[in-house]
Amino acid sequence: MIQRVRVIGAGRVGSAIAARLRERGIDLRADDAELVILCVPDGAIAEVAATIPTGPWIAHVSGASPLAALAPHTRRFSVHPLQTFTRERGPEQLDGAYAAVTAEGEEARELAFELARTLGLEPFELADADRPLYHAGAAVASNFLVTLHRAASTLVGAAGAPPEALTPLMRRTIENGFELTGPIARGDWATVDAHLDAIHVRHPELEPLYRVLAEATRP
Amino acid sequence: MIQRVRVIGAGRVGSAIAARLRERGIDLRADDAELVILCVPDGAIAEVAATIPTGPWIAHVSGASPLAALAPHTRRFSVHPLQTFTRERGPEQLDGAYAAVTAEGEEARELAFELARTLGLEPFELADADRPLYHAGAAVASNFLVTLHRAASTLVGAAGAPPEALTPLMRRTIENGFELTGPIARGDWATVDAHLDAIHVRHPELEPLYRVLAEATRP
Repeated sequence: MIQRVRVIGAGRVGSAIAARLRERGIDLRADDAELVILCVPDGAIAEVAATIPTGPWIAHVSGASPLAALAPHTRRFSVHPLQTFTRERGPEQLDGAYAAVTAEGEEARELAFELARTLGLEPFELADADRPLYHAGAAVASNFLVTLHRAASTLVGAAGAPPEALTPLMRRTIENGFELTGPIARGDWATVDAHLDAIHVRHPELEPLYRVLAEATRP
Repeated sequence: MIQRVRVIGAGRVGSAIAARLRERGIDLRADDAELVILCVPDGAIAEVAATIPTGPWIAHVSGASPLAALAPHTRRFSVHPLQTFTRERGPEQLDGAYAAVTAEGEEARELAFELARTLGLEPFELADADRPLYHAGAAVASNFLVTLHRAASTLVGAAGAPPEALTPLMRRTIENGFELTGPIARGDWATVDAHLDAIHVRHPELEPLYRVLAEATRP
């Protein structure tokens, strides 16, 4: 594994990555870094990459951005940790997460896999052209899970029930391997209609969300 | 607590409830039950309730059904475990879940709370008229979480990435208190557009779902 790395960007992901590399004994203060990891917003990758003299390996940690964003560098790859990060935790956030690796050439691929494993991630390969589709899936799974929880909390709260009661239910849904239960699984459309009537009266702004998801859930 | 209970229905919920009551030393074989718990599909509650001679307490475990479904009984209540159940687990599925209690009168309410706690549930009170809205929230949280996972798995799988990589991400989203991260949280609409382009080309049937959820996620 490379011994001298420069991490640019100290946001949620950059902080966790730098802390993990430090734990692994990697020198992060080196002027002569062998690898530069850009942990900056997607829209800033190309601009920052262009300011870095060519020579060292260069990588980004974005989910959707292509490798071309790292131009003019050609010794390049991407490692995207498939995880959501908070500032309140440290490098242990990386443990057990998967990572999408896109690389040009065998040497780049090997280095990317090695970096992912050093970080505590389980790497898999992802074609450059498939990155936006992959990242859309990640956003559906994580960001829209937040939206789902908000919508459910609004409905349950409006009914006078405690929204925190939803958390054990959502955890167990994952633990049970996403097995579908409830009215749609039972073909109980009368209950689905009762839901829609109640939402229509009390939270009509959530009706489109309920309808689209009910339709997608239907067998 | 009541000592003689009859549980009607041996589906997912009925089996877990009967097993837990048995663990607690409740007599489930009694002909002279003091309480009859209907663990039958919503559409069958009224019919089954009507066949039971009045006298004992009667309860249902449905989320959306009103107490009126238990007519002609008047000593009645509902305890709805806010949980998803699988046949592969036992009564421990009840532990740590909340339960919505709807009851007519103080005596019914006290018995319902006692039953919920005997089952291992944390009860809260829910008005009869609010049951459909509450249950809509439960369905959004649990059933549509399954749908979200399916949609995300489809996208990630179509990109050649392993869908099992989504599970640590979704677990952590819950662990992090549903903190929103990702492109919408960063105001990165270029990435959202890249997602939509990719979905439009590869899985157009998921475009309405993505659009409705992105709109609901927007601050």
